[in-house]
Amino acid sequence: MTAVSVRSNVRHAVRRLRGRAWSSDDDILAAEEPLEIRLLWEDGGVIVRKPIAVTMRTPGDDFELAAGFLYGEGIIAGQQDLVDVSYCTDEDEEQKLNIINVTLRRGMTFDASRLERNFYTTSSCGVCGKAALDALEVQGCAVLPDGPAVRAETICALPGKLREAQAVFERTGGLHASGLFTPDGTLVSLREDVGRHNAFDKLVGERVLAGTTPLSDHVVMLSGRASFELLQKALVARIPIVAAVGAPSSLAVELAEEFNITLCGFVKADGMNVYTGEQRILS
Amino acid sequence: MTAVSVRSNVRHAVRRLRGRAWSSDDDILAAEEPLEIRLLWEDGGVIVRKPIAVTMRTPGDDFELAAGFLYGEGIIAGQQDLVDVSYCTDEDEEQKLNIINVTLRRGMTFDASRLERNFYTTSSCGVCGKAALDALEVQGCAVLPDGPAVRAETICALPGKLREAQAVFERTGGLHASGLFTPDGTLVSLREDVGRHNAFDKLVGERVLAGTTPLSDHVVMLSGRASFELLQKALVARIPIVAAVGAPSSLAVELAEEFNITLCGFVKADGMNVYTGEQRILS
Repeated sequence: MTAVSVRSNVRHAVRRLRGRAWSSDDDILAAEEPLEIRLLWEDGGVIVRKPIAVTMRTPGDDFELAAGFLYGEGIIAGQQDLVDVSYCTDEDEEQKLNIINVTLRRGMTFDASRLERNFYTTSSCGVCGKAALDALEVQGCAVLPDGPAVRAETICALPGKLREAQAVFERTGGLHASGLFTPDGTLVSLREDVGRHNAFDKLVGERVLAGTTPLSDHVVMLSGRASFELLQKALVARIPIVAAVGAPSSLAVELAEEFNITLCGFVKADGMNVYTGEQRILS
Repeated sequence: MTAVSVRSNVRHAVRRLRGRAWSSDDDILAAEEPLEIRLLWEDGGVIVRKPIAVTMRTPGDDFELAAGFLYGEGIIAGQQDLVDVSYCTDEDEEQKLNIINVTLRRGMTFDASRLERNFYTTSSCGVCGKAALDALEVQGCAVLPDGPAVRAETICALPGKLREAQAVFERTGGLHASGLFTPDGTLVSLREDVGRHNAFDKLVGERVLAGTTPLSDHVVMLSGRASFELLQKALVARIPIVAAVGAPSSLAVELAEEFNITLCGFVKADGMNVYTGEQRILS
């Protein structure tokens, strides 16, 4: 699982207008490239190889992205299900950093027909928000226990800490970020991507590869909005507190309420909205 | 194709922290619900019905979302390919507004195996940004002709116009917006959604249903960042000028360059960056 250095940003000529003055310059753009995730497993002595997803992502932390994605989808339960994560070396130079092979542990198989269904249609109720929530229970997601407690001012300080940490890496203005923090507000890790789901998957995937999931004693801070899918990923990783710079959606709040996740939105230095799980916030 | 009134936002109790003061209030959340798009066509005298996508979206403009999605994916070429777009009435009350049936015109079929492939893998080159661009050409997307020309100050005024128009509809702070404008800066239409791809699909889908695609003489303004997928949708709709409040990704710029789309990023009242297609901007 040796990481390879990849380009996460790209220079491009740009014409800048400021007021009425035009100038020519170079701008740094967040790189965006497709990543294909292939799953490999043994079936009756034969290695089966199946592409299971293509996502547009910012190159970098690709093994973590693959591991976090598979974990969030419930395809692997943790590091113990992985034998190897590596770039596919069968392909030519240009694309070899855009295909990840993930080998499942011996004895573990994958039901490929699962990819043709999806979690809405696995529920008898059909296609609605309630069905989406029910399906999570069917997948074995339990309600989170109470705890840990976090001071309100600790949460309000997280967007600033996230931006500070981003400033170290980022010069493009085009990246979403997810940050993992301890309950006392210490930054554990930060991941960025053009896609906010990818940033979240990379963050969790790092812990999956390290064998340190679930993340029961952590807070996650999101640079954008809190959607149903991000809350779903937090639930699978057992993260009890989700804070977002932006607004949550209705279904994100419903999920947080049903599974006892603390959900804070519009978080900034001098305030926030607490939508669910207020018992974890010390005022 | 009668539209039905659906809830696009939802109230939820919230605890607000402002400075050190807590208060209880109701917050308005952007609604998020799954939408399943089903395609119906005749094959040898039998009606085939196939679910082809589930997307998390803000209810409202669902027929437009379905039409815009199918158009952006190249599954339909315009209104002429549609016989009917309607809510599925087979299901129970709760979910009947979450399933859309789209009936293709007589004689038109759909290759369902297409859903298992995707555009990256239809190209011989494989998985990389270059392959993604090549695949668009394979799909028949031609380079856009030059024109129309737009004044720089007209572009810079669009974010303000978009926000003004959003203020009429929106009270949640949680919605992405796409706005369609004429080259002189007149707002043609605006669509919002928790997902920015959905907002774009709804915007284009309205014109598909009205039979007024392609959108060669228009400018689109995006409330967020400009990704490869949004540029791809603009290209299919033949929109020559894409302006965004946020940053473009590297692959969005590459696509714009290759297909002669004018791409402006970080657009605000007193400036912007022009990445490609500067010949359409009158300074």
